Amino acid sequence: MSSTETHALENRRAIATVCLSGTLEDKLTAAAAAGFDGVEIFENDLIASPWSPKQVREHCADLGLTVDLYQPFRDFEAVAPAVLAANLRRAELKFDVMEQLGADTMLVCSSVSPDAVDDDDLAAEQLHTLAERAAARGLRIAYEALAWGRFVNTYEHSWRIVRRAAHPALGLCLDSFHILSRGSDPAAIRTIPGEKLFFLQLADAPRLEMDVLQWSRHHRLFPGQGAFDLTAFTGHVRAAGYSGPLSLEVFNDVFRQADPGPAAVDAMRSLLALEESLGATTLPAAPALSGHAFTEIATAGAEVGQALAALGFAHMGQHRTKPVALWQQGEARILVNSAASGTTSDTAFDKGAGQGAGESASVVALAVESADPVASADRAQRLLAPLLPRTHSAGEADLSAVAAPDGTSVFFCRTGPGGSWLDDFAAVAGKAVDAGVTGVDHVSLTQPFDHFDEAALFYRAVLGLEPDPVTEFAAPFGLVRSRTVSGGTESGTVRIALDSALLRRGDWAPGVREPQHIAFTTADALASARVMRDLGAPLLPIPGNYYDDLDARLAPPPDLLDALRAHSILYDRDEHGVLLHFFTEILGGRVFFEVLQRIDGYAGYGAANAPVRMAAHRRSRLG
Amino acid sequence: MSSTETHALENRRAIATVCLSGTLEDKLTAAAAAGFDGVEIFENDLIASPWSPKQVREHCADLGLTVDLYQPFRDFEAVAPAVLAANLRRAELKFDVMEQLGADTMLVCSSVSPDAVDDDDLAAEQLHTLAERAAARGLRIAYEALAWGRFVNTYEHSWRIVRRAAHPALGLCLDSFHILSRGSDPAAIRTIPGEKLFFLQLADAPRLEMDVLQWSRHHRLFPGQGAFDLTAFTGHVRAAGYSGPLSLEVFNDVFRQADPGPAAVDAMRSLLALEESLGATTLPAAPALSGHAFTEIATAGAEVGQALAALGFAHMGQHRTKPVALWQQGEARILVNSAASGTTSDTAFDKGAGQGAGESASVVALAVESADPVASADRAQRLLAPLLPRTHSAGEADLSAVAAPDGTSVFFCRTGPGGSWLDDFAAVAGKAVDAGVTGVDHVSLTQPFDHFDEAALFYRAVLGLEPDPVTEFAAPFGLVRSRTVSGGTESGTVRIALDSALLRRGDWAPGVREPQHIAFTTADALASARVMRDLGAPLLPIPGNYYDDLDARLAPPPDLLDALRAHSILYDRDEHGVLLHFFTEILGGRVFFEVLQRIDGYAGYGAANAPVRMAAHRRSRLG
Repeated sequence: MSSTETHALENRRAIATVCLSGTLEDKLTAAAAAGFDGVEIFENDLIASPWSPKQVREHCADLGLTVDLYQPFRDFEAVAPAVLAANLRRAELKFDVMEQLGADTMLVCSSVSPDAVDDDDLAAEQLHTLAERAAARGLRIAYEALAWGRFVNTYEHSWRIVRRAAHPALGLCLDSFHILSRGSDPAAIRTIPGEKLFFLQLADAPRLEMDVLQWSRHHRLFPGQGAFDLTAFTGHVRAAGYSGPLSLEVFNDVFRQADPGPAAVDAMRSLLALEESLGATTLPAAPALSGHAFTEIATAGAEVGQALAALGFAHMGQHRTKPVALWQQGEARILVNSAASGTTSDTAFDKGAGQGAGESASVVALAVESADPVASADRAQRLLAPLLPRTHSAGEADLSAVAAPDGTSVFFCRTGPGGSWLDDFAAVAGKAVDAGVTGVDHVSLTQPFDHFDEAALFYRAVLGLEPDPVTEFAAPFGLVRSRTVSGGTESGTVRIALDSALLRRGDWAPGVREPQHIAFTTADALASARVMRDLGAPLLPIPGNYYDDLDARLAPPPDLLDALRAHSILYDRDEHGVLLHFFTEILGGRVFFEVLQRIDGYAGYGAANAPVRMAAHRRSRLG
Repeated sequence: MSSTETHALENRRAIATVCLSGTLEDKLTAAAAAGFDGVEIFENDLIASPWSPKQVREHCADLGLTVDLYQPFRDFEAVAPAVLAANLRRAELKFDVMEQLGADTMLVCSSVSPDAVDDDDLAAEQLHTLAERAAARGLRIAYEALAWGRFVNTYEHSWRIVRRAAHPALGLCLDSFHILSRGSDPAAIRTIPGEKLFFLQLADAPRLEMDVLQWSRHHRLFPGQGAFDLTAFTGHVRAAGYSGPLSLEVFNDVFRQADPGPAAVDAMRSLLALEESLGATTLPAAPALSGHAFTEIATAGAEVGQALAALGFAHMGQHRTKPVALWQQGEARILVNSAASGTTSDTAFDKGAGQGAGESASVVALAVESADPVASADRAQRLLAPLLPRTHSAGEADLSAVAAPDGTSVFFCRTGPGGSWLDDFAAVAGKAVDAGVTGVDHVSLTQPFDHFDEAALFYRAVLGLEPDPVTEFAAPFGLVRSRTVSGGTESGTVRIALDSALLRRGDWAPGVREPQHIAFTTADALASARVMRDLGAPLLPIPGNYYDDLDARLAPPPDLLDALRAHSILYDRDEHGVLLHFFTEILGGRVFFEVLQRIDGYAGYGAANAPVRMAAHRRSRLG
């Protein structure tokens, strides 16, 4: 990255209407609200709109949006004369639309038609003719190689044809998906003159072994949500001298049906993070995070507090003005908020976390230790995560919080000497039995299905955490997709696990609705389990069959196996080390706790044991 | 098919627990209730169960289920001596489980392990050793070639190894997915001695271009729901002399999370239909169906009746004992049931269709013309679709109905001279303007997502209709999957269109909840539209952009294009002919009508126009 690129990008930001759900009206409104400068109008969206192209142009102008591209025009080039004539008629009718729409560039995709022949000279000649027609009307043609184009399916090939056609109104459209999905080397893009790069479409995607057309039409993601290196790709295009918009074109089954407002915010956040990765940003850097300051559970019931006591936590403090108890053991701090205020819970430090307390329990807030809480909050706002409105009494800590995509409040704290949020709590003479809990390993939050990819990007961009790869496993009641984000310093680590049921709908839902849990660390899981059991903790029983299989599968030492079985402790092993972990029952209908010991740098989260835990949780709720 | 096979199959019917959602307890209960004889116990289901293997055996015995297979045992063969020793220890521990479980056969999958080598002699030798150990405990080994096995991935290869191993306790497991997904020719199965075929697993699947492991783990279907020829496949296996169970092993993301009760019924229905296709059944044949006798809409509002009047329908009759009006034009008959009885509607001929009437409108029943209604009802019951309980007064028609998977009542009728259901209606002097409607082309019902594949199988098996291929299209609010089933005689055709939103969840749902519609036929769509517009029918306006695009895309004659535009009539073309069709607005929140003209044998349903129609429907509801 050259040092001249530390200012903001000069490229404008655009989004294709096909990225978003709804009618054209819904899409334009959402794109403008998220701050985009322009849009690509996807033809099908226009066709279904009651607005004439001229009305669309006026509406975009009112919203502050330019119409940067009209797309797609298919199956044009390398055809017999009669087909060419029909294709030119079709093009002229679309030019009429573009003139009214105020779009000066049309995307022409490489042909997939059985009418086409494999003849670059003919393709170049006919594209020249099309460009001549376009130029006569002040328009231009951006030619794009589809990854599944019949003859033209690489950017190198489309560039040979455009060069051969040699018309000033004919240039290239580059699409990161079409190029990176085929494993093409994007470095040669640097050799293309910038003025021939008419348009740049950006899409990420997970690595999938499937038909590339289906992969493209259903599984694209916004930059940073998938496996492609869009920083390098975009760097090549900018180095070539491209000065047009960075435009998102993402076909994704989930985004296609999600509320377009949040989806457009997610899209814009992905572009802002991409710009930062290019070194071209005015965003403040993400301050280092060094652990979980506290996690807040709202519940009107007594189950959670009783369970914490039985896990050895001490009731250390009581909020001076709110019905919030502070429970602590080692560096693990849990706030239990018993304000049962209808549909919104009044968290210790905030209003409006948006999750009901009532009889049931919910994790409503998580707080991270930030090296610079003010800078953390500033960055969040610049990344379209506005500060939550807050109420705090005089003299109380003035913490900043933003809402994660699932509605959880995320606080930026600095716990420690001098003005800590802990001062808001009056000390309580809570007695405790040390059960060995030393801190919080991770907080696990089930995400609404529509927000899974958005959530990972939120935590990566806003908090600066690093996402692990997406994993999936077959749970007793359907597939679960899981992804963790983490980051930290020498003094501590923040880990958040995001889970989502892939398909679950309908009434057959015997599991727990969107379970949430907090995992505590211990240096000796067996000792902790013994103490907690003696304290009467509601620990989850694990079936004997699990241990018989564990013996066959991983053959832990017999003594250890017996102890695990006796205490319902689960076992996992990775290339680094071993995990020992156990769970409580479900508390307040939704929340549970985990206690875990990472041995020799075990890096995972025990996903292999999750189905057994989930079946056990269901049983304990039914029985 | 030999004529000696017209009796019922001698093979028992089994299902793998992995096919169904829930805990092992849920799965066994569902399998037994659907009438299966046995189960394959999937290891993960056992591991998560609190029942010991012995308790599982006892529970299965109580339910009348045998345990036919324990599966899967992975990565055993063709390894170095130290690995073999570990693998044999693992096997012996699983043999312990099988003995308690009462399962005499273990499935061993061909290895995918990096520890394995490509050595058939070594594989055969080690499988011989394993079979010897199994035989010593009265057990046997069924070796299966996974389609993605590292070295062994065809049934021909697994058979060479089993033959070479030459141990009586070692045989083959054949799985239709592993064989047909690779395009192997199953005919050579006939050359394998029947006594070496230890187990048969059946699964169908759609044709997908993707990684075969992902295809197998996520997209299998029950026989008859996919693209494989399971009749031919199973025929080969039976011809070889296989006498074990026909066992379903279907990994499917949807079934994994659906209520296991209906899923097990769906599974059993697929086996019964497969047996019928093999000519080995005692099921009565499906009587010919010759059209739609009536379709019943429940609504407390007046919108539907008013719309029917404006479409030229006459109010021809009123039910003698129930608040049900008969509307007719040509051979199209609609019953409008205004009994607004809370959560269940009291249909004209039935109770318990299970869909609320209230203010909104719903299609609650469809009636088909059957050549033999009694035989139709008998067949339905034999295919696990029990007759709905019915109330009818003395002298009224005694029609039989069953519930489709979405809860719609399906009646079997014979309209015509002598004892028709029409006699239950007192004539009304309804006046009408003939708008050219001649009958019902199709009824379109949005299916709950969980029941989409089940519904197609229901209509195919129970009613004897033929399903068309599954199609998908991008609608304004997300992907829609669609499949039609149809069948008929010279005197009429039954067509039912099944649609389902692929992913829709959450609150962003500006479209119509599970829309339903009835499509009427006309011989002159333009004339019908003119008459209906004059009558004040609430016809759906279509945007001008649609016609501009239609001109560019299909270039219909200019006069026709003008007329279509003037009357908001949509246009489509297939390899046979042309479709002209138009729609009403949404009535009662959910139901609408279509009027269509099929020209020159157009065979489709105008799916290309559906997104435009859906956007227009949304607009008309918002505006």
